[in-house]
Amino acid sequence: MRVAVLREPGDLVVEDRPVPRPGPDQVLVRIAAVGVCGSDTHYYDHGRIGNFVVEAPLVLGHESAGVITEVGSGVRGRSVGQRVSIEPGVPDLTCPQCLAGRYNLCPAMRFFATPPIDGAFAEYVTVHAAFAHPVPDEVSDDAAAMLEPLSVAVWACRKAGVSPGDRVLITGAGPIGLLALQTARAFGATDVTVQDVNPARLEVARALGATRAMDVRDAPEASDAEPPTLLLECSGNTAATLAGLDALDRAGRAVLVGMGSSALPLPVSAIQERELVLTGIFRYANTWPTAIDLVTSGRVDLDALVTGHYALTDARLALTAARDVPGSIKAIVRP
Amino acid sequence: MRVAVLREPGDLVVEDRPVPRPGPDQVLVRIAAVGVCGSDTHYYDHGRIGNFVVEAPLVLGHESAGVITEVGSGVRGRSVGQRVSIEPGVPDLTCPQCLAGRYNLCPAMRFFATPPIDGAFAEYVTVHAAFAHPVPDEVSDDAAAMLEPLSVAVWACRKAGVSPGDRVLITGAGPIGLLALQTARAFGATDVTVQDVNPARLEVARALGATRAMDVRDAPEASDAEPPTLLLECSGNTAATLAGLDALDRAGRAVLVGMGSSALPLPVSAIQERELVLTGIFRYANTWPTAIDLVTSGRVDLDALVTGHYALTDARLALTAARDVPGSIKAIVRP
Amino acid sequence: MRVAVLREPGDLVVEDRPVPRPGPDQVLVRIAAVGVCGSDTHYYDHGRIGNFVVEAPLVLGHESAGVITEVGSGVRGRSVGQRVSIEPGVPDLTCPQCLAGRYNLCPAMRFFATPPIDGAFAEYVTVHAAFAHPVPDEVSDDAAAMLEPLSVAVWACRKAGVSPGDRVLITGAGPIGLLALQTARAFGATDVTVQDVNPARLEVARALGATRAMDVRDAPEASDAEPPTLLLECSGNTAATLAGLDALDRAGRAVLVGMGSSALPLPVSAIQERELVLTGIFRYANTWPTAIDLVTSGRVDLDALVTGHYALTDARLALTAARDVPGSIKAIVRP
Amino acid sequence: MRVAVLREPGDLVVEDRPVPRPGPDQVLVRIAAVGVCGSDTHYYDHGRIGNFVVEAPLVLGHESAGVITEVGSGVRGRSVGQRVSIEPGVPDLTCPQCLAGRYNLCPAMRFFATPPIDGAFAEYVTVHAAFAHPVPDEVSDDAAAMLEPLSVAVWACRKAGVSPGDRVLITGAGPIGLLALQTARAFGATDVTVQDVNPARLEVARALGATRAMDVRDAPEASDAEPPTLLLECSGNTAATLAGLDALDRAGRAVLVGMGSSALPLPVSAIQERELVLTGIFRYANTWPTAIDLVTSGRVDLDALVTGHYALTDARLALTAARDVPGSIKAIVRP
Repeated sequence: MRVAVLREPGDLVVEDRPVPRPGPDQVLVRIAAVGVCGSDTHYYDHGRIGNFVVEAPLVLGHESAGVITEVGSGVRGRSVGQRVSIEPGVPDLTCPQCLAGRYNLCPAMRFFATPPIDGAFAEYVTVHAAFAHPVPDEVSDDAAAMLEPLSVAVWACRKAGVSPGDRVLITGAGPIGLLALQTARAFGATDVTVQDVNPARLEVARALGATRAMDVRDAPEASDAEPPTLLLECSGNTAATLAGLDALDRAGRAVLVGMGSSALPLPVSAIQERELVLTGIFRYANTWPTAIDLVTSGRVDLDALVTGHYALTDARLALTAARDVPGSIKAIVRP
Repeated sequence: MRVAVLREPGDLVVEDRPVPRPGPDQVLVRIAAVGVCGSDTHYYDHGRIGNFVVEAPLVLGHESAGVITEVGSGVRGRSVGQRVSIEPGVPDLTCPQCLAGRYNLCPAMRFFATPPIDGAFAEYVTVHAAFAHPVPDEVSDDAAAMLEPLSVAVWACRKAGVSPGDRVLITGAGPIGLLALQTARAFGATDVTVQDVNPARLEVARALGATRAMDVRDAPEASDAEPPTLLLECSGNTAATLAGLDALDRAGRAVLVGMGSSALPLPVSAIQERELVLTGIFRYANTWPTAIDLVTSGRVDLDALVTGHYALTDARLALTAARDVPGSIKAIVRP
Repeated sequence: MRVAVLREPGDLVVEDRPVPRPGPDQVLVRIAAVGVCGSDTHYYDHGRIGNFVVEAPLVLGHESAGVITEVGSGVRGRSVGQRVSIEPGVPDLTCPQCLAGRYNLCPAMRFFATPPIDGAFAEYVTVHAAFAHPVPDEVSDDAAAMLEPLSVAVWACRKAGVSPGDRVLITGAGPIGLLALQTARAFGATDVTVQDVNPARLEVARALGATRAMDVRDAPEASDAEPPTLLLECSGNTAATLAGLDALDRAGRAVLVGMGSSALPLPVSAIQERELVLTGIFRYANTWPTAIDLVTSGRVDLDALVTGHYALTDARLALTAARDVPGSIKAIVRP
Repeated sequence: MRVAVLREPGDLVVEDRPVPRPGPDQVLVRIAAVGVCGSDTHYYDHGRIGNFVVEAPLVLGHESAGVITEVGSGVRGRSVGQRVSIEPGVPDLTCPQCLAGRYNLCPAMRFFATPPIDGAFAEYVTVHAAFAHPVPDEVSDDAAAMLEPLSVAVWACRKAGVSPGDRVLITGAGPIGLLALQTARAFGATDVTVQDVNPARLEVARALGATRAMDVRDAPEASDAEPPTLLLECSGNTAATLAGLDALDRAGRAVLVGMGSSALPLPVSAIQERELVLTGIFRYANTWPTAIDLVTSGRVDLDALVTGHYALTDARLALTAARDVPGSIKAIVRP
């Protein structure tokens, strides 16, 4: 099979590798679509994300979907020919975090495209059967791949406790921010404000149902609205985060989704005086069934965010589309 | 002013009474619309509900809305001319239940149309200003009155914790069941089954977005669907309640909204083996802002449930419409 | 090795069987102590509990502890010679209930001494390494075995949300009720009432710190105390359960622990008017570390409940001690 | 009556003022004991705390208790001669925060000794009857006054969700840290580490039951213990807070109680990777009954923290005891 391998920062090559064989509890999946995530691009550009360093050739890609072509000897409930969306992190299942239902915090997690675990820019991958989620026909291959970033948005909305009556502020209108917008609306929020500095993305936010979509630099003037009860921070930008926290209502909650801000100068007295609750999220747990429901029911439109398709041999172009292709939101590789 | 007074079961007369004067923290409201609730009809027919007995002439009606015509001396934030929806129960505000945010459980609650407190089948009523909720113009008078039963549905969905991913079973398609259907969808449920024995009401449930609307007697055959995670019991019928509990998924939750079932033969081993959580609701607390948002945003359509308008002099007909007028869902009195 | 086998109701024999070999993720444990649970006695007397029927010879006993004598090839973090308490139910780890942290609700659970799975009235058992919990030296063998029933009490207190400020009513002063008493106190409850009809058990309750220990038949007279906020129902008796629910404060919570009451005539209007929350428990999840802490710190005294020790050949006497030996609370078999 | 008045920073005088008369819903309390809080000292030294500026003469003191000497015309449930502990903040009761049970976040809160509201360094004060909490005889006057800082600790433990199985790290062993220690133990924590730089206070922490009490500068070396699940930050010190957050286990929770750290450089990636939840507290809500239970039952010892008593004329000495009297923990003024 053919695989796109990152050898060093900026050096991506397509190689032939043997098709892997599924273990007893695994399935083999022929990949139909792989979304490009900002983290893939970051590995491509810099060869590392924080403590995770690409020290050996690495296959990128962790937003993927395809068709089962083989099932392991001990697998039940999955069969050859099923279309599946792949949850790309498999925990050890038996540590205290796993047993408590927080498997995303498993210290032994093996996650696609995170050194030294290979990802899905490949014709075939194997994955634990329980993490290959069957999808109905009305979910496209692209959408099935994008259930992964949608899971991030679902997890953020769960952690925030989005519900009718909440006023939600979303800072950052990249793919995750736009998914958070749709998801927050699906969780019942009727008032969702999106802030960004990119007019094109704000336009998309408006089209996807934002109550307000505004340049963050215009925000202070515009606020005759009631303060938001929830902040979904999807920009990773320090100033946006601080402005978002500052805007929150008493007893407001903030979920830090965007990465990048390392030492946020937290206004402790504001946290105290308004009893704000702040947390961050790390991937997701138990989100696929809900994400599938949201797409199947039409509450969330994933295909609307796809702005380009690429062959495996053009994976390099897919990885750089977000910065090189104007208007790009989500690039999809089809191996 | 003119007031419709229940003197004895079945004996409703229109009288003249002096217009009340608002206390220092009250507003005076000229009533524009009053919805008829099953409890009003029950008092009209039987003169009592459980321990609440009509021992002196009583004004019925607790789903009401109107326009402020006078404000008490200490009131701030309300003004003459404002259109308001009336939350009909005023607690003492300082007991432990109130201070804990559970003011609906206040032992000293004074609630409209519950002996000996008069209700809103009247041209004017007074109410504590904080319980007269301003409504925007896009909410009709009828809808403003019906924010009260919508609050019951909001409270039920909050207690159940409805969220995307839940599969909701609603037993009973009367006004509350139909509101619970719309509200559960607004809370993010994508799979909502409604059961009743009345084909006309099931048809309304389908029109309002039920995934399935079925005669409860057909239910056992029809279930190739996954089991519901939540039960909103809105029928008060013992058999329906038991069938609903029996259907629930492991870790399911049930909220008993419908009244009438007095000694439900609870299957304790099922409660234990599946760790079902069961609760009941008593009115609501802190629901108006959310209810207003749901209506204003179009997530819930209250006007669609109105099936008849009546003058104060015809209040008797309004009170009996539910049983005498085929297809009746919600009767509105306009004093 | 020697094993006590239940062949038919009342027919328990000691047999020789080969020592089992641990699978790759299992450990082999030489059993030091096994507590007798009411369910063991019920199987011994009746050959069934509800739908679980003893159709082939069955080894009873699921409250057990011992020493690891062999570890499977893939096991890490456990070693020969470690003293362990055995969590007797091993779920499939990958179903939705398991992944959500509710592994006690796993449909594929394999639980000791529940047909057709053998239990621990044996010299050796194998168990998944993650479910063999190391215990420190200050926990006796008997106490290590009794971490299992203590886990039931911990789970009940977690489900009830016991915390300082709660007033707890415990109905039933059998082993579980007495553990619930100690555990509720350890969770911070300062006011714990225990009801039973057995004066000896009430005396034990007093000695273990009950604020009040009373014959349930005297209860109505005695209540100048504030109503309980929580009910831990440990008797399985219908009248006691109904009286307990009736006593609960507004917004009270009830956890049904005791088995036996099949069709509890639930007072729906009371559930509604006070918004009581009622649930049942099925075993426990993620309780062992907490149970170990409670014993190690002295907050819960398990050894105080042990009233008799029996050899494996006397397992029959151990199984009937609760009804035949006056004052018996917990019998321990030492294979 | 005599009152100690702060006219300017460092300028405290005792004046005569007329005894206030209780309003219809108030009681008049003859003050028996007033604790000195760090905020009192801060006003005395600096004339301001953040945005709260002493612009007119101010009576300090908000930890107080005494005896009711007069009740307002509308008061029920309180009577002359009752000993009461005063909850020093009275909210408006009807704003959305109050109605939701978060009355501590009421924007219209009137709080003792916070400009321009006078406090309790006086012979008499009036307070809303619902905020004058009767205390039983076994609670001393000093302890009754100190139910106020104990309430802070109770609120912190509730927000953190302290429960058996938690490992609690408390940074700062001042009065609030020492109360948090006792309260965390009363909430069921069996493993409580206290960090400070003051050896005398660490010694008190040990005496009050800390599992470990260590100089924060020694902490890194000492940690072969499992990481804490909860952080109760009671120092207001930036380095201690950051070290505490760094130590937290996955899914850990932190409550910022101590004031002083204004722009905490929050490690966002740590918050995300471990999904830490962080919040701050602002006073407390609904804590007095629990605080009274904890003291009455002996779970928390307040009298042990009292290190000095002062007459009203020596209030100045009481205000500066914490810095001027070696070993001082809590100074009490007895007007």
